[in-house]
Amino acid sequence: MYHISVVCCMNVRRMVRALTVPALGLLALLCLFSSEPVQAGKVLVVPVDGSHWLSMKILVEELSRRGHEMVVLVPETSVLIGKSGNYTTKSFRVPYTLDDLKANLDNIEKNAFEKPPKLTDIFENVGNLIQFLNMQVKACEGLLYDESLMKSLSETGFDVVLTDPFLPCGTIIADSFLIPSVYFLRLIPCLLDEAATQCPSPPSFVPRFFTGFSDKMTFHQRVENTLMTVFEAFLCRKLFAGTDELASRYLQKDTTYKELLSHGAVWLFRYDFTFEFPKPQMPNMVQIGGINCAKKGPLTKELEEFVNGSGEHGFVVFTLGSMVSQLPEAKAREFFEAFRQIPQRVLWRYTGPVPENAPKNVKLMKWLPQNDLLGHPKVKAFITHGGSHGIYEGICNGVPMVMLPLFGDQGDNVQRLVSRGVAETLSIYDLTSEKLLVALRKVINDKSYKEKMTELSAIHRDRPIEPLDLAVFWTEFVMRHKGAAHLRPAAHELNWIQYHSLDVIGFLILILVTVIFVTVKSCMFCFRKCFKKTQKKKKE
Amino acid sequence: MYHISVVCCMNVRRMVRALTVPALGLLALLCLFSSEPVQAGKVLVVPVDGSHWLSMKILVEELSRRGHEMVVLVPETSVLIGKSGNYTTKSFRVPYTLDDLKANLDNIEKNAFEKPPKLTDIFENVGNLIQFLNMQVKACEGLLYDESLMKSLSETGFDVVLTDPFLPCGTIIADSFLIPSVYFLRLIPCLLDEAATQCPSPPSFVPRFFTGFSDKMTFHQRVENTLMTVFEAFLCRKLFAGTDELASRYLQKDTTYKELLSHGAVWLFRYDFTFEFPKPQMPNMVQIGGINCAKKGPLTKELEEFVNGSGEHGFVVFTLGSMVSQLPEAKAREFFEAFRQIPQRVLWRYTGPVPENAPKNVKLMKWLPQNDLLGHPKVKAFITHGGSHGIYEGICNGVPMVMLPLFGDQGDNVQRLVSRGVAETLSIYDLTSEKLLVALRKVINDKSYKEKMTELSAIHRDRPIEPLDLAVFWTEFVMRHKGAAHLRPAAHELNWIQYHSLDVIGFLILILVTVIFVTVKSCMFCFRKCFKKTQKKKKE
Repeated sequence: MYHISVVCCMNVRRMVRALTVPALGLLALLCLFSSEPVQAGKVLVVPVDGSHWLSMKILVEELSRRGHEMVVLVPETSVLIGKSGNYTTKSFRVPYTLDDLKANLDNIEKNAFEKPPKLTDIFENVGNLIQFLNMQVKACEGLLYDESLMKSLSETGFDVVLTDPFLPCGTIIADSFLIPSVYFLRLIPCLLDEAATQCPSPPSFVPRFFTGFSDKMTFHQRVENTLMTVFEAFLCRKLFAGTDELASRYLQKDTTYKELLSHGAVWLFRYDFTFEFPKPQMPNMVQIGGINCAKKGPLTKELEEFVNGSGEHGFVVFTLGSMVSQLPEAKAREFFEAFRQIPQRVLWRYTGPVPENAPKNVKLMKWLPQNDLLGHPKVKAFITHGGSHGIYEGICNGVPMVMLPLFGDQGDNVQRLVSRGVAETLSIYDLTSEKLLVALRKVINDKSYKEKMTELSAIHRDRPIEPLDLAVFWTEFVMRHKGAAHLRPAAHELNWIQYHSLDVIGFLILILVTVIFVTVKSCMFCFRKCFKKTQKKKKE
Repeated sequence: MYHISVVCCMNVRRMVRALTVPALGLLALLCLFSSEPVQAGKVLVVPVDGSHWLSMKILVEELSRRGHEMVVLVPETSVLIGKSGNYTTKSFRVPYTLDDLKANLDNIEKNAFEKPPKLTDIFENVGNLIQFLNMQVKACEGLLYDESLMKSLSETGFDVVLTDPFLPCGTIIADSFLIPSVYFLRLIPCLLDEAATQCPSPPSFVPRFFTGFSDKMTFHQRVENTLMTVFEAFLCRKLFAGTDELASRYLQKDTTYKELLSHGAVWLFRYDFTFEFPKPQMPNMVQIGGINCAKKGPLTKELEEFVNGSGEHGFVVFTLGSMVSQLPEAKAREFFEAFRQIPQRVLWRYTGPVPENAPKNVKLMKWLPQNDLLGHPKVKAFITHGGSHGIYEGICNGVPMVMLPLFGDQGDNVQRLVSRGVAETLSIYDLTSEKLLVALRKVINDKSYKEKMTELSAIHRDRPIEPLDLAVFWTEFVMRHKGAAHLRPAAHELNWIQYHSLDVIGFLILILVTVIFVTVKSCMFCFRKCFKKTQKKKKE
């Protein structure tokens, strides 16, 4: 199979200025046939269910369209990973039911809606996360020890494993099959991604997750951030203890998840610096933020009529992500009450009970074409929980936001937009219709929100290459070159003490102290000698 | 003026697979007219003379072709910066002659050819560098205080300054005119670029210049590398003391060159990781290694005949860079003697005296079309001094090298290729025809050199976007958005102690010590109390 290489396209661009228009067809044709053939590869996809899958699916389908054979491993309790003509799925058994998974999620939701946020939440969050990860490690164990499935996968001869390292199974399989891996992620809990890439992350200007800090911190915040960095190292051990044990047992070598991750060829990170604060990067880290909002479709006739009927006031889009479509009744009432008092129409993904006197400017739906709606010229604001997918749909389309973080990285995501002056944030726990109204009116009527968001959106979209093309390029690169060894820093061969040059500093201090000691002793010795002589002379 | 945006091209690429061939012309046409108009901008170019200019010129000419108004500031003693129809030049007076410049260079050359390399060379090199930089600061002073020229430049209303920060004048002008700057460089002496970008550069795996170390160091080397890091900080102050003084005086504020550099919007670095060792990067660092070897032309008839006449043995290209075309006679004789004994033909850029019995397989020329020759299928090896331009021409074309570093960063450049097994290095000081023969025969006859170089070349050329297009994109980006503020890390607002969290660590140690002290004192107090009571009781 052939495709026009990017390089070729770049040349079209340069040559096009020198050519007459009718020559363009011929040029494109030449380009098509002179470009390098791309070998169709075999890609094993080990995804994470839920919203994580929604953006990875875009890359999986594009790779499939480019002729690669895609095999997706799907747990039998999958929520969002469906079958498709574009890829083969292989299902595997898991030792829990869909209800177990939902119970875990409900627990987290309940916390967000019913309890005031407090410092000790982090321990509860960590507890929930450990419970969730242990569940997933059990599932992974089932998969790894399913001999017939693993044998058939092994015999397929995959070129690369494409996985979201939020969960460890893909990485263990890649090591077991001796094939390179490409990671597709927002982050790994406890920022294990930074440790595994050996990426410097100074706590003085890189805020830790769960702190809610920006990159500009006071002394007090820097102290907290440094303590959080120490805590993270401890957290990583706790979170992935089960993974480390499984990996060592299955691969029959003494290893850790971090060690396995460090062999990842390329890391595709779903962020860029219109969202994330500027921070150091390593050569094999590639930014593909906004990969999820490239494709826009037309609205249905019904939706088009509803949003166009909003007149000059426009409309507001409200969703709390792919996993949360209900709210406690009292909480929902506050939203209905606020929406009643604004001139905008509201499109709300909501499946809970509806009060009798629900305002008429509100349209409730089971599912919203979020990105298509946010791309509509009449949209005025986006009420969101602050998941990274929704945030990028807001940035791509330049829509100011009111943000209601629920759990996980959402509190920190929100901070990134609030600090840029393009969003307001509210706590869902003590949300009232008045507070919501104030925030909504602010982002809609105060023009600075829209102006700053339009500028941020322009910067985000002004890039030399589209995120999807970049993700495809690097996945194919890893297939072509069987990894990306030239991007692997020598830091991976150092331990923590060596990496930070603590042994060298210790050695230099030792030498310095020895030199000072010997010098002082020598001086004292000479001084004493001279002093004694003087005393003797005096006595004489 | 319009151009097909890269984004548009990427879409062509994706859509092309779904379209019939005749539709391609129409598609390219649509793409042309739907793309965003690019505003023609005004670019002030402040280059560094010599080989530095040769690669910057490629970007200057491309920007000119894209409709931007390019004004290049040229010192009146310029060696290589000539006039061109593609850009306007503005000449300024300098307080030294071309002979002064050449004397400085001859001095450095003499050292390389006539003295054995030793540890103290670094002090001599630094001395030469300080002398050269002071000369350039004087030239810059002349330019800055040339009121009529500066007034006319200021009134032109430039959008961006494109400069090589190896010399400081462009940066000072950008600050004075309040316009953003784009830097185009390999490095700044004493690695001021790393300090100015706030890029972490752990001495445990990032080798310092002038050490000749690879990224994998022994303990002893890491100690030296750490000491060199400390020395560099001292060196930077010495090297740029004159610049700091001039900048503060001219800009009428207390500033340093490092401080001014830190406001650079985007840094275009002439390296990538097929040449440089993998190391941390900052968001506004862009790699454009290989920008100088994209364009290849056909050979003249005379050259084509000479290289084709080399038969199965092929030919060798030998140059020592744009500034060195002569050799001490005795040294030249060793080369002639070695070349006499190989079956390859040799193309040598040499203008010195020729011995009577010069071998017939050697063709001497005043100037060589180096990149065109290295791209010829019959080329077998490249003898080079290890300048970054020549190195990239070698990598682009996949030609193994014999390297003879002369001065500056060349010793370190060479180390990078030798450690990859694609080159051999020799010292020019004690070079003999025998040593040269051994090295040449090794890189030509031992297939591993060619194989590794072919692989390195393939990796280098396998990139999502061409370096020249990337350089153009980021220069235009800075013009469009008046800088790249979203890429500026908050680290710039921290001092050295804050950046390394030394204040936080000190504070935490203080708390820890206090807690331990209070605990121990309390315990001792209680213990004493209890002990006394027991003693009293015993006495009673």
